Amino acid sequence: MPVVVEKKAVIKANTEKNVKHKSQTRRKSATKREKQKIKIIPLGGLNEIGKNMTVIEYKNEIVIIDCGLKFPEEDMFGIDIVIPDISYLIKNRDKIKGIFLTHGHEDHIGALPYFLKQINVPVYGTKLTLGIVETKLKEHNLLSVVELKKIQPKDTIKLDTMSVEFIKTTHSIADACAIAVHTPLGIILHTGDFKVDYTPIDGDIMDLPRFAELGRKGVIMMLADSTNVERTGYTLSERSVGQNLYNLFGKAKGRILVATFASNIHRIQQIVEAAEKYGRRVAVSGRSMENIVQVGIELGYLKVEKNTIISIDDINKYPNDKVVVITTGSQGEPMSALARMASGEHKKVTIVPGDTIIISANPIPGNEKLVSKIINLLFKKGADVVYGPSEGIHVSGHACQEELKLMQILVKPKFFMPVHGEYRHLKQHAELAQTVGMPKDNIVIGDNGDVIEVTRDSIKKSGTVISGQVFVDGLGVGDVGNIVLRDRKHLSQDGILTVVATIEKESGTIIAGPDIISRGFVYVRESEALMEDAKDIVKDVFQECEAKNISDWATLKSEIREKLRAFLYEKTKRKPMILPIIMEI
Amino acid sequence: MPVVVEKKAVIKANTEKNVKHKSQTRRKSATKREKQKIKIIPLGGLNEIGKNMTVIEYKNEIVIIDCGLKFPEEDMFGIDIVIPDISYLIKNRDKIKGIFLTHGHEDHIGALPYFLKQINVPVYGTKLTLGIVETKLKEHNLLSVVELKKIQPKDTIKLDTMSVEFIKTTHSIADACAIAVHTPLGIILHTGDFKVDYTPIDGDIMDLPRFAELGRKGVIMMLADSTNVERTGYTLSERSVGQNLYNLFGKAKGRILVATFASNIHRIQQIVEAAEKYGRRVAVSGRSMENIVQVGIELGYLKVEKNTIISIDDINKYPNDKVVVITTGSQGEPMSALARMASGEHKKVTIVPGDTIIISANPIPGNEKLVSKIINLLFKKGADVVYGPSEGIHVSGHACQEELKLMQILVKPKFFMPVHGEYRHLKQHAELAQTVGMPKDNIVIGDNGDVIEVTRDSIKKSGTVISGQVFVDGLGVGDVGNIVLRDRKHLSQDGILTVVATIEKESGTIIAGPDIISRGFVYVRESEALMEDAKDIVKDVFQECEAKNISDWATLKSEIREKLRAFLYEKTKRKPMILPIIMEI
Repeated sequence: MPVVVEKKAVIKANTEKNVKHKSQTRRKSATKREKQKIKIIPLGGLNEIGKNMTVIEYKNEIVIIDCGLKFPEEDMFGIDIVIPDISYLIKNRDKIKGIFLTHGHEDHIGALPYFLKQINVPVYGTKLTLGIVETKLKEHNLLSVVELKKIQPKDTIKLDTMSVEFIKTTHSIADACAIAVHTPLGIILHTGDFKVDYTPIDGDIMDLPRFAELGRKGVIMMLADSTNVERTGYTLSERSVGQNLYNLFGKAKGRILVATFASNIHRIQQIVEAAEKYGRRVAVSGRSMENIVQVGIELGYLKVEKNTIISIDDINKYPNDKVVVITTGSQGEPMSALARMASGEHKKVTIVPGDTIIISANPIPGNEKLVSKIINLLFKKGADVVYGPSEGIHVSGHACQEELKLMQILVKPKFFMPVHGEYRHLKQHAELAQTVGMPKDNIVIGDNGDVIEVTRDSIKKSGTVISGQVFVDGLGVGDVGNIVLRDRKHLSQDGILTVVATIEKESGTIIAGPDIISRGFVYVRESEALMEDAKDIVKDVFQECEAKNISDWATLKSEIREKLRAFLYEKTKRKPMILPIIMEI
Repeated sequence: MPVVVEKKAVIKANTEKNVKHKSQTRRKSATKREKQKIKIIPLGGLNEIGKNMTVIEYKNEIVIIDCGLKFPEEDMFGIDIVIPDISYLIKNRDKIKGIFLTHGHEDHIGALPYFLKQINVPVYGTKLTLGIVETKLKEHNLLSVVELKKIQPKDTIKLDTMSVEFIKTTHSIADACAIAVHTPLGIILHTGDFKVDYTPIDGDIMDLPRFAELGRKGVIMMLADSTNVERTGYTLSERSVGQNLYNLFGKAKGRILVATFASNIHRIQQIVEAAEKYGRRVAVSGRSMENIVQVGIELGYLKVEKNTIISIDDINKYPNDKVVVITTGSQGEPMSALARMASGEHKKVTIVPGDTIIISANPIPGNEKLVSKIINLLFKKGADVVYGPSEGIHVSGHACQEELKLMQILVKPKFFMPVHGEYRHLKQHAELAQTVGMPKDNIVIGDNGDVIEVTRDSIKKSGTVISGQVFVDGLGVGDVGNIVLRDRKHLSQDGILTVVATIEKESGTIIAGPDIISRGFVYVRESEALMEDAKDIVKDVFQECEAKNISDWATLKSEIREKLRAFLYEKTKRKPMILPIIMEI
């Protein structure tokens, strides 16, 4: 199975001048290949939605596919984002040849700034992907120190032993790619996030023939997107949304506001086109939406007629039926532009009866209530609100069952590992693959940190490396762990009671206090008697300890906690955190 | 429009012997009716899902329909349940003739114990509804002091000026009723929660003819369930679930575990019947499921063959393919039986490969992630998990658009107020009613606390009464309010820093401390330097105050808070709660 790299462009890592063309292929001796192995180490994206990151290691080379973040779960109180634990890569930093990005969504690029502050390696991606990465690196003051290497689909980056090929796919963001890592043992294919859209908005169809070609050459292992594996049939084309938006625009008598994902440039393109057909100007609200529209126009991904785009400051200069506002907030995010409009706190846009608000997105699981809250507020302001799956104003960016089968059949990989999904998705993707001929034993359901060893004819989990989630909270990266989170959860449930007393060290006599101060427990005014009783209990504990000659503060504190906890639970059936503080003089 | 009460049974309030029959109707003079008005005051269930409660007041009589609870929103940290504010009813307690229950769901009966502790009035409901209420009152030691008055559909309870009629409906709990309040001005009809099920499991079809008859007599106002107004078409019959369950049972090779809502006795009946057809025994797990099965069998709502039910302790005495377990936990509730099975913490049931777990319920919005977590865990244990809308193993208990139209057309009310829903539902229900002929001006979209005044030919909001949500947290009812919740939220985000110092009163000199103790903020070990710097800042504040001769502790504390807050935000971009405590000696 000779591995031949023969793509449009073969770029040698880190040196632009090493761009080679189709004829300049390289061949390697087949000696000893049988004993060699490739390690595939997912550091994120398995048994979870988000923080996608996959390590492919062969000999002394490491290729990293994606570097994403995850948004915190509900019980991760106060956490801003979650990123992968990259201890393994820090230990093996010298092997790393670069990070290769499939597309520009946060769950694929969002951990980059944190990664690059620790390990500065080149980052490869398509024009739009890097455009989005640039904005992000700028915010972290990293733009000048990081090497961004722009590639095009069909490009191949030649490393010492491997080479990395980008293959055009379609997804809910433009410029998405799958990645084929060519190794002496065969090809490792990572689909990235994809759907099979035969009529994409930019006309640039997924390179299905290349998938078939790689399949013919010999894909030793495929890693494929599992997000939509529970859905039967096919995902509709992005283009299907356009006609429905156009119809809604035709019915709207006043202003139109469309909320959607900022990253979906093709959706934005369709909104712009519908606006232009009806002679409406388009204003943009929300920081990420403003960023993407600017990047999209600059890089040529968003095609807008002259004069279409107006400033949000100028919307009142046009008649209502000549205005469209594209906004963030389709997930109900409380600080988003749409949320501020709904609550009347947006500085530039005041919702009035006659406005039509189109929510061109489905709520991501967990966001339903936030979105619902905004819909209620918008209705209350007299707007028409259009939302929900029956309106045909949103399609997914991920492949459904039939598309996933197509990918299996085109690529015919020897081994298969479903990625990007919770266990239920991975499990069902494994079962789906079996329905189109993949032997059960050739499928690995992995977990983050697993080391999957692949040879020409075998696959096994050979061990694990450190992996996990690192919490980012404000400026702190990793300084909030499970103990801090456990305390935050405890505090959130029943609040805290602080018990303070000043003691004379020698005698053990209280000379000030005990005082009890509570926060998040009860209304103090309504519970004065309770607090007085609590204080008496603390005094009793001090007296008992004095009587027993206990001068060990740890024992005393523990006694205060126990006694108070029992008392408060009996009286209130609540368990606030109890924090005894004893000062000695 | 003469109001004639002619139902199966007319029961005079509070006296069983006053049961009268069809012939014993009463007629009232029509004098002065034109000037009279009825007040309708929703105290819960509008602009929210849950805590349904409606007051109907005419002259010196108040009828209360339902007394429900609401489960807390995500940002109601530590709150167990939310109940209606009944201040208005406490003030008007002498007028109250009773609470009339439409059905036994928590959002219609859950606030009863809290209500009855404050206002002890008779409670009317059907047999199953009161059966469930009894269990609840027992837990609150109220059973002996509360008068429960069992009625049957078609019964009418005669009050002084009004009479209250129960009308059979169908819903996802057995024994559900609509309630018609007959007044001298006409009939007020409250649908309760309902769906139109032509083939209910108990064969007891909704009394549609009576709705039509009331419509003919003259319904002055209808209040109708809005829950499913966003769904087109009809809700499927509960019976449709049975065949799909039966088919799944036929395929299962090992044990079958079915999770569903405890209150859905008809679902449980169908599970039992499928089990019996396959010769499987049925065990029950989860406290509420055990309660309902017991009540259901005792009262004759659940028909079970002899020997079908076995103890959960005995499931291992039967072959796996002869066992079905019905369990709570279909919403992913973390302490539920199914959750404990999934995490391996259930004492009686250990999930093994070959088990089939059927989740016969859809996640209520907000519960998706909890349910998903359990599905993942069950899959990991090797079980087959059957879930999701495509399986046909769950149907809603609420009427979709076509059923809501049917109700409008049968009842032909003069005025209409949509109830049971968020604003989006109420708004869309109002629009739906207009499509079948209800004039826009005859519709009121109300809010909790609104006083809706209805006369024979007019409807208006005439004012408001106190209404709102009362938080129940442990034993505390109403002692947790917005300040406590705000503190809990603050604590949950960034934790707390307690700053303590003991001061000599005279000199203002620190004689012990300052000490800083944090919880939920940072790992102390990793942030020692930060804490030392924070301590220095506090010392500086003391010195400055001493220098400026400030001995006002409020000012000093406020200064400490400000300085520390700025410092910590700069260093960490976090804003923990800061609690300065100064002790004087």
